[in-house]
Amino acid sequence: MLIFRNHPELPEPVFPGSHLVMDDRYAYLSGLVAADLPGAEAVIGDVRAETELVMRQVGRLLALAEAEFEDLVRVDVHLVNLSEIEAMDAVYAGFFPGGRFPARTCTESRRLYGGCRVEITCMARRPGRE
Amino acid sequence: MLIFRNHPELPEPVFPGSHLVMDDRYAYLSGLVAADLPGAEAVIGDVRAETELVMRQVGRLLALAEAEFEDLVRVDVHLVNLSEIEAMDAVYAGFFPGGRFPARTCTESRRLYGGCRVEITCMARRPGRE
Amino acid sequence: MLIFRNHPELPEPVFPGSHLVMDDRYAYLSGLVAADLPGAEAVIGDVRAETELVMRQVGRLLALAEAEFEDLVRVDVHLVNLSEIEAMDAVYAGFFPGGRFPARTCTESRRLYGGCRVEITCMARRPGRE
Repeated sequence: MLIFRNHPELPEPVFPGSHLVMDDRYAYLSGLVAADLPGAEAVIGDVRAETELVMRQVGRLLALAEAEFEDLVRVDVHLVNLSEIEAMDAVYAGFFPGGRFPARTCTESRRLYGGCRVEITCMARRPGRE
Repeated sequence: MLIFRNHPELPEPVFPGSHLVMDDRYAYLSGLVAADLPGAEAVIGDVRAETELVMRQVGRLLALAEAEFEDLVRVDVHLVNLSEIEAMDAVYAGFFPGGRFPARTCTESRRLYGGCRVEITCMARRPGRE
Repeated sequence: MLIFRNHPELPEPVFPGSHLVMDDRYAYLSGLVAADLPGAEAVIGDVRAETELVMRQVGRLLALAEAEFEDLVRVDVHLVNLSEIEAMDAVYAGFFPGGRFPARTCTESRRLYGGCRVEITCMARRPGRE
């Protein structure tokens, strides 16, 4: 049985997607951009600040699935300018203080929703679910 | 044991991929573009019509895995022009009348196979498989 | 319990990611480009040679998960020029002599890490793990 959840403190998604889908073992998050989140105005165009806002939201959604950053198995990052990868990574890495990094792919997309610089898609193994 | 299937009513894939791979719990579909499907000539270049053709094919492939649209957990959409997202979504959303939307990421790709406007990649949890 | 592994014969990843993440059933590989691998200098810019180098590395990482190419369920390929798909496929297909091809999506990304022509992201079902 799948569970489709939106975060109770966020606006409904503007697109036909769920913030979070959970099955018996995994949690799947929709691609997150800062433009969809409260506080967007102050950060859009700054890849560091966008990454921070998005990753905090990842943490909130993982919490709904009773998971943490170290339960992420796969992350897909899209940047509008691949040259900003180090700036993005400097923020991104801080969410994994134990160095248990998920498998990751980072590619360049010509344009992202809402004029954002970064979009992040996450998949996690929900702990304790056999 | 993995099962690799192509749809019996379609031409073999032109690329080294299977239309559908199934394991004991999940079904993985190759990225679908209208150019690979019967009826392509009439639709290529119209993102709405391409989306309709592709999503109908998603439904046929899910049926091979004994799954439905509401069993999709993750969908990756690629558009050549992100401005066409609302047009694509208007068609896409119609395949989920119950509003049980999978996690979704939509990005812009400079070019897609066969000159198509949209490509869709799906992953489903096969129901009833513990 | 997740296992985060880097390949013992390779340099540590230059990005905050693991070469390989394993859970009880699946193996997730980070997106691989030739630039991250020994022998890169001789191949960057040649999509065939890059594909060969990357796919050999995929095989080594799958071996760490006790898996083979035929255990791959989903592969995402990114090319900087989609016109090079046939050249890439000619090499890629050779790694699946039995024709058991994973679900695949191939899109165009304007730029890839290290000036590479191709990046490949893989997900495998680890055999014998119920």
